[in-house]
Amino acid sequence: MAPSFDKLDTLSINTIRLLAVDATIKANSGHPGAPMGLAPVSHVLFNKFMTFNPKNPKFMNRDRFVLSNGHGCMLLYALLHLYGYELSLDDLKSFRQLGSKTPGHPEAADTPGVEVTTGPLGQGVSNAVGLAMAEAHFAARFNKPGYELFNNYTYAIMGDGCVMEGVASEASSTAGHLQLGNLIVFYDDNHISIDGDTDQALTEDVLKRYEAYGWHTVWVKDGDNDLAGIAAAIEEAQSVKDKPSIIKVTTTIGFGSKLQGTHGVHGNPLKKDDAAHVKELFGFDPNDSFVVPQEVYDLAAKQAAAGAAAEEAWNQLFAKYTSEYPELAADLKLRIENKLPEGWEKALPVYTTSDPAIASRKLSETVLNKICDVVPSLIGGSADLTGSNFTRWKTAVDFQPLSSGFGEYSGRYIRYGVREHAMGAIMNGLAAYGGLIPFGGTFLNFVSYAAGAVRLSALSEVRLIWVATHDSIGLGEDGPTHQPIETLAHFRATPNIMVWRPADGNETSAAYYKALTETHTPSILALSRQNLPQLEGSTIEKAIKGGYVLKEVDGADVTIVSTGSEVYLALEATKILESKGYKARLVSLPDWHTFDKQSEEYRLSVFPDGHPILSVEVMTTNGWQKYSHEQFGINRFGASGPFAQVYKKFGFTGEGIAERAEKTIDFWKGVPLRSPIRRAFAQVE
Amino acid sequence: MAPSFDKLDTLSINTIRLLAVDATIKANSGHPGAPMGLAPVSHVLFNKFMTFNPKNPKFMNRDRFVLSNGHGCMLLYALLHLYGYELSLDDLKSFRQLGSKTPGHPEAADTPGVEVTTGPLGQGVSNAVGLAMAEAHFAARFNKPGYELFNNYTYAIMGDGCVMEGVASEASSTAGHLQLGNLIVFYDDNHISIDGDTDQALTEDVLKRYEAYGWHTVWVKDGDNDLAGIAAAIEEAQSVKDKPSIIKVTTTIGFGSKLQGTHGVHGNPLKKDDAAHVKELFGFDPNDSFVVPQEVYDLAAKQAAAGAAAEEAWNQLFAKYTSEYPELAADLKLRIENKLPEGWEKALPVYTTSDPAIASRKLSETVLNKICDVVPSLIGGSADLTGSNFTRWKTAVDFQPLSSGFGEYSGRYIRYGVREHAMGAIMNGLAAYGGLIPFGGTFLNFVSYAAGAVRLSALSEVRLIWVATHDSIGLGEDGPTHQPIETLAHFRATPNIMVWRPADGNETSAAYYKALTETHTPSILALSRQNLPQLEGSTIEKAIKGGYVLKEVDGADVTIVSTGSEVYLALEATKILESKGYKARLVSLPDWHTFDKQSEEYRLSVFPDGHPILSVEVMTTNGWQKYSHEQFGINRFGASGPFAQVYKKFGFTGEGIAERAEKTIDFWKGVPLRSPIRRAFAQVE
Repeated sequence: MAPSFDKLDTLSINTIRLLAVDATIKANSGHPGAPMGLAPVSHVLFNKFMTFNPKNPKFMNRDRFVLSNGHGCMLLYALLHLYGYELSLDDLKSFRQLGSKTPGHPEAADTPGVEVTTGPLGQGVSNAVGLAMAEAHFAARFNKPGYELFNNYTYAIMGDGCVMEGVASEASSTAGHLQLGNLIVFYDDNHISIDGDTDQALTEDVLKRYEAYGWHTVWVKDGDNDLAGIAAAIEEAQSVKDKPSIIKVTTTIGFGSKLQGTHGVHGNPLKKDDAAHVKELFGFDPNDSFVVPQEVYDLAAKQAAAGAAAEEAWNQLFAKYTSEYPELAADLKLRIENKLPEGWEKALPVYTTSDPAIASRKLSETVLNKICDVVPSLIGGSADLTGSNFTRWKTAVDFQPLSSGFGEYSGRYIRYGVREHAMGAIMNGLAAYGGLIPFGGTFLNFVSYAAGAVRLSALSEVRLIWVATHDSIGLGEDGPTHQPIETLAHFRATPNIMVWRPADGNETSAAYYKALTETHTPSILALSRQNLPQLEGSTIEKAIKGGYVLKEVDGADVTIVSTGSEVYLALEATKILESKGYKARLVSLPDWHTFDKQSEEYRLSVFPDGHPILSVEVMTTNGWQKYSHEQFGINRFGASGPFAQVYKKFGFTGEGIAERAEKTIDFWKGVPLRSPIRRAFAQVE
Repeated sequence: MAPSFDKLDTLSINTIRLLAVDATIKANSGHPGAPMGLAPVSHVLFNKFMTFNPKNPKFMNRDRFVLSNGHGCMLLYALLHLYGYELSLDDLKSFRQLGSKTPGHPEAADTPGVEVTTGPLGQGVSNAVGLAMAEAHFAARFNKPGYELFNNYTYAIMGDGCVMEGVASEASSTAGHLQLGNLIVFYDDNHISIDGDTDQALTEDVLKRYEAYGWHTVWVKDGDNDLAGIAAAIEEAQSVKDKPSIIKVTTTIGFGSKLQGTHGVHGNPLKKDDAAHVKELFGFDPNDSFVVPQEVYDLAAKQAAAGAAAEEAWNQLFAKYTSEYPELAADLKLRIENKLPEGWEKALPVYTTSDPAIASRKLSETVLNKICDVVPSLIGGSADLTGSNFTRWKTAVDFQPLSSGFGEYSGRYIRYGVREHAMGAIMNGLAAYGGLIPFGGTFLNFVSYAAGAVRLSALSEVRLIWVATHDSIGLGEDGPTHQPIETLAHFRATPNIMVWRPADGNETSAAYYKALTETHTPSILALSRQNLPQLEGSTIEKAIKGGYVLKEVDGADVTIVSTGSEVYLALEATKILESKGYKARLVSLPDWHTFDKQSEEYRLSVFPDGHPILSVEVMTTNGWQKYSHEQFGINRFGASGPFAQVYKKFGFTGEGIAERAEKTIDFWKGVPLRSPIRRAFAQVE
């Protein structure tokens, strides 16, 4: 039955608008325009359509809502407050203030009810594609006749900014391909961006573009007033089961303000007299602020109560399901609790030096083959490099719409296409849904295409894994356009992300162990194209510390620290040095982030005082000074050629490393050296 | 008159195909499939349509050709060889070998005739948009009745990979908005990507999407054989003056191979027997390789000769133009010679300590206001943040199609929309055209969205400028989603790019001085939102060295090195330290790249031996160990709140810095310290 609307709906809408006006004025900062324009859409959606339980924001089958234009976050904060999430009126009053739950853009890690962290444009709507994929997957995997455990929708609002961003284009094309009928996106067509009239830069036919992607399209021409039209559009979108829907809603930015319809109301609080004008227009007292009429709370509470009841019904259904489908239920329960199957880690392969030399991208494939069968929450794929990244495990079934003929929604292998940025953002959405551990493959160099999404993985504290192969000049002939130099430095400098560069099989297993068990930290695994020997002294137990002594000697003249494909070369170097009468230790440091979390005592045991340390890695030396006194790396772009020749060109051989080590020993002879671990003061972390 | 085709055309096409077959076999690496499928299109284009002079690959009014699917570069190398560019058969034989002119992906800096560096997908077609914008601008600026100096086309080929990449979507939407009738893009619809059938990931209607962007669309259904159809499509595209055109050409990847039409022929050389099969099919001797029939050379030479004649005619026209329009001609000549107007640098503003505190984004605006009028090759804009980046100068006219009502093609202010990645790639194209110095504004944090393009700016050695404002936690309320932590570390680790973070007005002028005068290096200018005082001791002359002593003292206890908005705080700290009896030097280090190019003697004068050095910057400490013994930074995400409070929260005040400096002095007391400039061995650069 179509919902009906009355004065109370209008009052609710205007309350939301004025909360945004008041909060931005109090903060003297922020974006009132979008919330004022989008209050009608969001009210209809939250009040008449969405199922959610503010008392348990994590209710598994809740409808998801994403505000992709995150700068309009006072809209979201106002809604969360009205519906009874843990967000008080005082929280709204401390909008954009230090330590508040209402930061300048919505952060999932900080605020209950915020599904994903948005603000950087284009990300939210791409996350929404991941959220919708997750639902489709859970429904296909867990629903049984009489047990529709999963049927939630994912709703998103995006503005013109998101529409223009390439990541949103990539994700939207993907969503169309995947026929995600559970995804409904509102396009806030207010014709204004920061530079003013969008006609200055955006004259494409957005709905036609989405039609081309395979979406269902609807246009609500009066998004300011036509509540019934908005509701009808949502119902129409819900009725289309095999396509995502985009509902273009033409709205007036800053509705009610004297500056409505201009960019003057986009990113600045309203002037005092204008705020008074809006309040009078809406029948509020111009002298009051942060006013919420009780009947507005009451109306919201009804919907919240319906959500709580829905969760209760779901819990009962799940209890029945548990007795009928105990294995599936156990799997689902584990996922809801964010736990891994007991003993999964026993599936991780262990190597000895008698095992052959293998490229770490192949070692990664072996791990995936072992663990994907025992950890059903793993869901992954590649950005069209399956045969290079080795991301597909033997028993994998493609995640595809049935009609494609390539797979089904219960499948777990995702064909992302050549869309690295969308892959990153979709993985953020998959992870945010809960119960899934996404992984995605591309060349390490092209993780940079997804930098915007990677940063948000780290900031929003989600667990996901980049299978980043072809990790250096070692990829050889493809040349400098594909050879990372700066990439590891970039991501090592990003907070809360592990950047693993394993040297052999045991270290690859360790990388996956940490990637799966650190539930609030994403990982990048940098993996070689070329073969790497299995090293004596490497174990999973040592490697999961992020760094360890691979070769110890008493009275060392030098420590060499290295990662990945250079560790065995550094080992060769230690032997050459020995033959010349030097004593050389060797440290493998596959992940800085993990190593930095170890005790100072442990870190000092790896990097002791008293002798120089030389770092060796075929990339920029920037950053390595943190662990070493001298650095051997490549501070230029690479070269196209067979990999062994490229390595040799730059001096990355046992001899080349030994030569630098000798020079390091000579240079520091007689200088009392401290471990670089020792610091004068504590870092801001 | 429509071109006609005969057996010689077929022979030329098959010659190209076989050169790709032979070169990939010889290299035992590379991509034969795309060249074999695209030989017909490229032959028709090069032989019947394009104007170019292989003896002068830089002829200003040449048609530009971009191979966006750069992995198919043997197509381009074969063409460049056949038409007489400086690329011998021996060069083709050393395909993908160390030091060759034929690397695994085309590099503009290495190979004559390669317009832009491609390989990372989506970039080339986006560069092509920039190349077409440049032509439109030059035509509008320099053409006069009877003097059509500029009328070249930009042609590009892209594959399914480019079609899927978001950067290409952004750039294509922009091209449609700008009505670039001089841009003709071929979409190689071969239905194969690395994962196999594109239907696994790409089921959108590509031509419909381009129609939505405002492009003219054509489809050539038999791109393998229908040469007349290809020619007719090009003529049709040329006839549409107010829209870019996309010509979808349905081709067979690896045409002629036993594996044609499959991904088996995408990224691997043909097997010996398959190569023999193809040669026999095409009437070539299966035992020969790298065969070019003389008549194929001759046919190509005709078109090359026509190009040389076109240049000669152009030169004569330009000579006449020079007498009729001496000022315009002088401007154009200067640009062709890649020179700046005499004395332009006198326009750079100079400041004294009596000038007020000003945000460096405002200082940047002042520079742009001064220099845009005297340096007409500057062409710039913003990714929809004009009012925040302050990129628009007072006399600016928008670069827009006349019918938009917003400007004209002779204008130099570009409204990029919220499309950072396309902005980066378009700037690469504008710079590659020659005679233009592009700049583009966004928040520093969102330069990361364009990482793929920035990397190629550096690799292809083009001069362009990112006006990257809101460069730190100093942006305040927008919070962690917008506050860079890792961004400078990322770009400082990238070879051949300047990353300026000026501390005041003189340093901002210095940054622009270097950005304009280093003709083969791109720049990022990291600029503050908050006000910065004019510093005593800063001058343009000192700052253009990348780093200098801002405050010298004899017998220093400590040197503080800092950048940008922290320099004045560090200066406060030196005064606090003085009041406590310490002697503190202060170094400002606005650009590492430039500083590293100074003599060792100079660098040691800035960072001498004998006392500890403390770095201070409100971002990651990673990398700063290169210049300092201790580092004060932020190795976590930022916080949303008023900027002064955010700075204080993390200890970035005069007192906070002085406290760390004291701890640094204490910690290193009695330890003989070497300058971090001294190194044990030379770096690979």
